[in-house]
Amino acid sequence: MDNFPKASMESMRRVNEITGKQVTTFSMDMLDKDALRDLFKKHKILCVMHFACLKTVEESCYKPLLYYKTNIGGTISLLEVMKEFSVYNMIFSSSAAVYGSPSYLPIDEKHPVGGCINPYGKTKYFIEEILKDNCTAEKQWNVVLLRYFNPVGAHVTGKLGEDPQGIPNNLMPYVSQVAVGRLKELTVYGDNYDTPDETEVRDYIHVVDLAQGHVAALKYLKKDCGCKVFNLGTGKGFSVIDMAKAYESASGKRVPYQIAGRREGDIASCYADASLAEKELGWAVKLDLAKMCEDLWRWQSNNPTGFRPDS
Amino acid sequence: MDNFPKASMESMRRVNEITGKQVTTFSMDMLDKDALRDLFKKHKILCVMHFACLKTVEESCYKPLLYYKTNIGGTISLLEVMKEFSVYNMIFSSSAAVYGSPSYLPIDEKHPVGGCINPYGKTKYFIEEILKDNCTAEKQWNVVLLRYFNPVGAHVTGKLGEDPQGIPNNLMPYVSQVAVGRLKELTVYGDNYDTPDETEVRDYIHVVDLAQGHVAALKYLKKDCGCKVFNLGTGKGFSVIDMAKAYESASGKRVPYQIAGRREGDIASCYADASLAEKELGWAVKLDLAKMCEDLWRWQSNNPTGFRPDS
Repeated sequence: MDNFPKASMESMRRVNEITGKQVTTFSMDMLDKDALRDLFKKHKILCVMHFACLKTVEESCYKPLLYYKTNIGGTISLLEVMKEFSVYNMIFSSSAAVYGSPSYLPIDEKHPVGGCINPYGKTKYFIEEILKDNCTAEKQWNVVLLRYFNPVGAHVTGKLGEDPQGIPNNLMPYVSQVAVGRLKELTVYGDNYDTPDETEVRDYIHVVDLAQGHVAALKYLKKDCGCKVFNLGTGKGFSVIDMAKAYESASGKRVPYQIAGRREGDIASCYADASLAEKELGWAVKLDLAKMCEDLWRWQSNNPTGFRPDS
Repeated sequence: MDNFPKASMESMRRVNEITGKQVTTFSMDMLDKDALRDLFKKHKILCVMHFACLKTVEESCYKPLLYYKTNIGGTISLLEVMKEFSVYNMIFSSSAAVYGSPSYLPIDEKHPVGGCINPYGKTKYFIEEILKDNCTAEKQWNVVLLRYFNPVGAHVTGKLGEDPQGIPNNLMPYVSQVAVGRLKELTVYGDNYDTPDETEVRDYIHVVDLAQGHVAALKYLKKDCGCKVFNLGTGKGFSVIDMAKAYESASGKRVPYQIAGRREGDIASCYADASLAEKELGWAVKLDLAKMCEDLWRWQSNNPTGFRPDS
């Protein structure tokens, strides 16, 4: 289910095409509790994978109420309905944003949480706390919190990928649109960070590896795991310039960039210690940076205007 | 407006009696957005004093969803309706609980927040963050967050006081019910804390001083203050034994007690630096510990079964 505020039904059509299965899809709003109830009434649900959140950092700063209402209010409604229908398994799409500014690297799951600097990050943190408290109070719940680092790439077929509307907020979709000629040049925010090439370092993870992490979590839930938290990252940090260069190699296109000032609240480096997920979930990344860029370029060049015929 | 889950309409009748005014009262639920809208439609509202939260620490631990939904969901609904009707002034009833375990004493407003150990405290902390982010995004808002320490006492007439249902969760109502004979003895949780008499130390504030703090905050809002935070406390710490002894003096009754183990999550000492409220709001406490006990005893002895004819 999705209310499709930014996604396209065309993406679901392609999922069906790739998988050869009909994935039942519901166009509805999580805040509509009656619609949620109706969905739970009509289907036998074993586990909810909860990705339903607004996720644009900048927008969250000027529309905080909308973010708190949608992300937190929506999650509370969802939990209430799950409880009504005795569905007690959830995988929640959390974020490395819950760690705030890292106090050490790589970040493991014992790193302190909170201290988030924008409403988006706070909603992820608050939801984690709500889910943990709910598991503590009611032992029948099993919840896996997956803290994503920086998902990039696309499906290997080049048929499924990220399709941001307007100017992309994340680095790789931006880089990709520069390479394909939709945008003129990349803006690099800050070249005076304490990193090898002085641009920001992040832990980029291939979306297919990320998806596999969810399959592993789904199996793990069967062990009646209670509430567990895992980082989903590669453990490797790459800089903005690293990413632009890797994308140039994969695409054979130039990615010109200009340097601008730092953005408020940005941190120098962030990358995961992902060993817990390997140990407990039996999951590890398989796809490297070159593959992330290669798959993203296939998607971008086959679909220069995303899922829509033209932009 | 109140949905009166624990309060009595009799208390409102007595407010009218004491003040000689008819205070318009609405029995409705903050989560009922249509009812909220109706209220805002029918009345010209200059400022909302927002006290509408579930507040029992222990209950919040076994009903976390109810607490998150009521306190956070209710606040978000209220803010949305306020915005619809261009009401941008709020005084929010926050709590010293947002400080978590103190890292220094006395606690001033610059003390770190978060690290709350129970869902009740987290709801207050989360609401503070939501209100702050909302003020940052929309400059027309003025919000004063009042962080209460430990309110006790009663109105001087002995007609208005706290009337907890069942076994009281807070110290002074408990002490008071022991003194009046409704409960047998006080249980002191922990006598091995690092405090002068080894029992827990808190900052008890007379409810009338606390109420005056709200009047001061209401005047302060007229200055277009944006989002401001103030501690409402006395700056003095008293131990559990101090409080029991003071109440014995005020009531002339014995308050027998037994020592039990510490409660999980309890902290040794907590008291305010209340100098910011004095400087900015021009507010300071006027009523001392003897007066808190005297007024509480007058309420308790005149109303041994609270607002109800018998218990």
